[in-house]
Amino acid sequence: MDVSSTANGGQTARVVAAIRQRISARALSPGARLPSIRSFARTMGVSTSTVVEAYERLVAEGLIQSRPGSGFYVTRVPQPLALAEIGPRLERAVDPFWVSRQSLEAGGDVLKPGCGWLPASWMPEAELRKALRRFARAEAGHLVDYGTPLGHPSLRRLLSLRMSEHGVVAPADQILLTESGTQAIDMLCRLLVEPGDTVLVDDPCYFNFLALLRAHRVKIVGVPWTPSGPDLTAFAAALGEHRPRLYITNSGLHNPTGAMLSPATAHRLLSLSGEAGLTIIEDDIFGDFCEEPAPRLAALDGLDRVIQIGSFSKTLTAAARCGYIAARPEWIERLSDLKIATTFGGNPVSADLVHAILRDGSYRRHLNGLRDRLARARGDVASRLRALEIRPWIEPRGGIFLWCQLPDGLDGAEFARRALAEDVVLAPGNVFSVSQSCAAFMRFNVAQCADERVFAVLKRAIAAATV
Amino acid sequence: MDVSSTANGGQTARVVAAIRQRISARALSPGARLPSIRSFARTMGVSTSTVVEAYERLVAEGLIQSRPGSGFYVTRVPQPLALAEIGPRLERAVDPFWVSRQSLEAGGDVLKPGCGWLPASWMPEAELRKALRRFARAEAGHLVDYGTPLGHPSLRRLLSLRMSEHGVVAPADQILLTESGTQAIDMLCRLLVEPGDTVLVDDPCYFNFLALLRAHRVKIVGVPWTPSGPDLTAFAAALGEHRPRLYITNSGLHNPTGAMLSPATAHRLLSLSGEAGLTIIEDDIFGDFCEEPAPRLAALDGLDRVIQIGSFSKTLTAAARCGYIAARPEWIERLSDLKIATTFGGNPVSADLVHAILRDGSYRRHLNGLRDRLARARGDVASRLRALEIRPWIEPRGGIFLWCQLPDGLDGAEFARRALAEDVVLAPGNVFSVSQSCAAFMRFNVAQCADERVFAVLKRAIAAATV
Repeated sequence: MDVSSTANGGQTARVVAAIRQRISARALSPGARLPSIRSFARTMGVSTSTVVEAYERLVAEGLIQSRPGSGFYVTRVPQPLALAEIGPRLERAVDPFWVSRQSLEAGGDVLKPGCGWLPASWMPEAELRKALRRFARAEAGHLVDYGTPLGHPSLRRLLSLRMSEHGVVAPADQILLTESGTQAIDMLCRLLVEPGDTVLVDDPCYFNFLALLRAHRVKIVGVPWTPSGPDLTAFAAALGEHRPRLYITNSGLHNPTGAMLSPATAHRLLSLSGEAGLTIIEDDIFGDFCEEPAPRLAALDGLDRVIQIGSFSKTLTAAARCGYIAARPEWIERLSDLKIATTFGGNPVSADLVHAILRDGSYRRHLNGLRDRLARARGDVASRLRALEIRPWIEPRGGIFLWCQLPDGLDGAEFARRALAEDVVLAPGNVFSVSQSCAAFMRFNVAQCADERVFAVLKRAIAAATV
Repeated sequence: MDVSSTANGGQTARVVAAIRQRISARALSPGARLPSIRSFARTMGVSTSTVVEAYERLVAEGLIQSRPGSGFYVTRVPQPLALAEIGPRLERAVDPFWVSRQSLEAGGDVLKPGCGWLPASWMPEAELRKALRRFARAEAGHLVDYGTPLGHPSLRRLLSLRMSEHGVVAPADQILLTESGTQAIDMLCRLLVEPGDTVLVDDPCYFNFLALLRAHRVKIVGVPWTPSGPDLTAFAAALGEHRPRLYITNSGLHNPTGAMLSPATAHRLLSLSGEAGLTIIEDDIFGDFCEEPAPRLAALDGLDRVIQIGSFSKTLTAAARCGYIAARPEWIERLSDLKIATTFGGNPVSADLVHAILRDGSYRRHLNGLRDRLARARGDVASRLRALEIRPWIEPRGGIFLWCQLPDGLDGAEFARRALAEDVVLAPGNVFSVSQSCAAFMRFNVAQCADERVFAVLKRAIAAATV
């Protein structure tokens, strides 16, 4: 409104956003006293008059109240939980939701080397159509009835068999079907952690772990990730210092780096965790992409403190989703109640489609084809990227990702914003990093890099940034 | 082990179970001091030696520790959340999970007048098969891609249109698809309430509201339900006394009673809620069963403080589930992030099937047929029940339920256990009641009473109880 204040408007908005975010995330709860104007000005690196202006704006909005002589307080009307501040497409903060929303909401013209899934043309289309036609002839009960609490018995028996191939002993009644891999982890967090507990993750890790853990309002501690697994010295130190309740990791193939646990790291990791009474969720969602046997924590541990989860969204379909949890019997029993309470009956149709494709040999043939095709794509994309001085951190032995270091001095978030303006969704390193130490990295999905435009846009973005 | 203690063994087990339940539900958190032996003996109505024995057993199990001179304390090893104590099929406590588990897990020979859904033969089988065959020919992307955060755009537009027929103005971008009606309420609870908040429900209400709210560890307060809606005097008193954050109710048709809100009650309810700043979740899941227009809170309120949810599990299929939330734009925006964080992409196949059936006229024809058939079944079953002196509380104007008073002196839970021994799952009144004041009631699903055996078992259970 006042033209003279425009220069300062951005700073005021930043302070307003910071307070609003704290209230939404309940770091400031209803009735809490806000930081003093002076101290918050210092924290935000702005003048006290900017903070005064911001607080006044929040008073006008009814979000906070002033008590003369005492300070500012959060109004006692509770605010709904907000996981991210909402903004227009390009200005939205590059937070854990950035890549998810950009790639899930992308229109048909948008290229998505930043997304975490295969193009439709790589998926087993014919098998899915066949399974759907077969299901259209199923008996009436299968078409309309609720699922049982554990879910589709034949699919659970098949999963049990598949797990045994990786050395994981999980009888069918120790397997609970979920509506997705993400929902599996979410349910386990509801079972195992409370707000304020500490959870360990890899740094970097799959960005949606961070979004999910935010929803559980736990303290997230990152452990630096190496090409053979978590840095064990840092892991041991984190156990001692933070007494975490849970550790969430990928084993088969790590997201975003494509690395695999070494057997020695796996063993040592379990010993340390055992001593500390730590529970581990092993997310095996990329396990079927492994080109060689990968050690599974759940196999070594015998499903005692380790819980394995997985899904078929990456290799079969993400449109009829189906995940699973394999865990101790008493945890499965409690998860059944939690599943009833929060979803009632699961999605038997999805389970049936997955079962139909898994039970004949076509899924295995599909995986073999995928692994070959991905190996070629990783090789091709790696050399295209190297030509742009974007350097893969390791050469993964399977999977869809290359975790790459950007040319010196380039900031991933800045880079991703530029690319988005040209309709290319990238995955900047810091969305994967608790410590925000991966600004110079970027995750590439090699299966989504077939279009020349990807490299043209990368080239332009590098040129623009190094002017 | 000691035969002489057998007589007392049941009481000790009861005390052990009570403590275990409090620890699991975190009413007693790690490190908390247990009630003194004397006071807990009074609470449980047992001797102090029984409590001593129970505490010793829990010490032996490592669940609690004794500190000489100071008392007993919960061990500092955190326990996973437990929503219900687990027991064998017949002995399991008749808690909010009782009916869910018995009916979801029931084999083919079990009759389920206690369940909350229609038999498969009542559902639109031909339309589902047709929709599946059509979907088997969809373009590849639809078969395999993740859904968008809000979900299937055409289905949301159709839902918007359908809601407008009930006077609810909800543009498609104010509608978010969920994986079920239950998941819709669960997500809203995650958005709106915190552990320790108070939530109002009807007494009686759908038992899974109670299970779900337990998972959110809120305080549940029941408002007595009348044939025209909640008792408004009690509602107003509850607002004043408990300052609830949320009220969850059914409008279209109430579960378990089949009653409808009267327009005057709806209006007064909203005025009271507005003054108190209360948010309302209106679960319209049985709305399509209404034989005449029912007032919708979301219509009167204009989706301001009222959120409407619904699903098609009751009228179309519970095997490919799809629910929705209609709410204020800023809440939908936050729910989108929560949906990404906790489920990532929804289930587009289910949404597509629902859309395919809703968009042609067959769903409307199916509903008309259902309503007629249900009206006949309600009449028939009501007279069969009256002959056994099981008396319907009201004559519902639609839906699948009859809420009935049992013959004098009969206890619903006892009755249900007897019936279960004969493979008939009933829904005893108290599983619906926060205040446990519905022991003399029972909910009957008229569509699940076609088998003569239901009435034979009821008759025998009455005879056995009145000996």
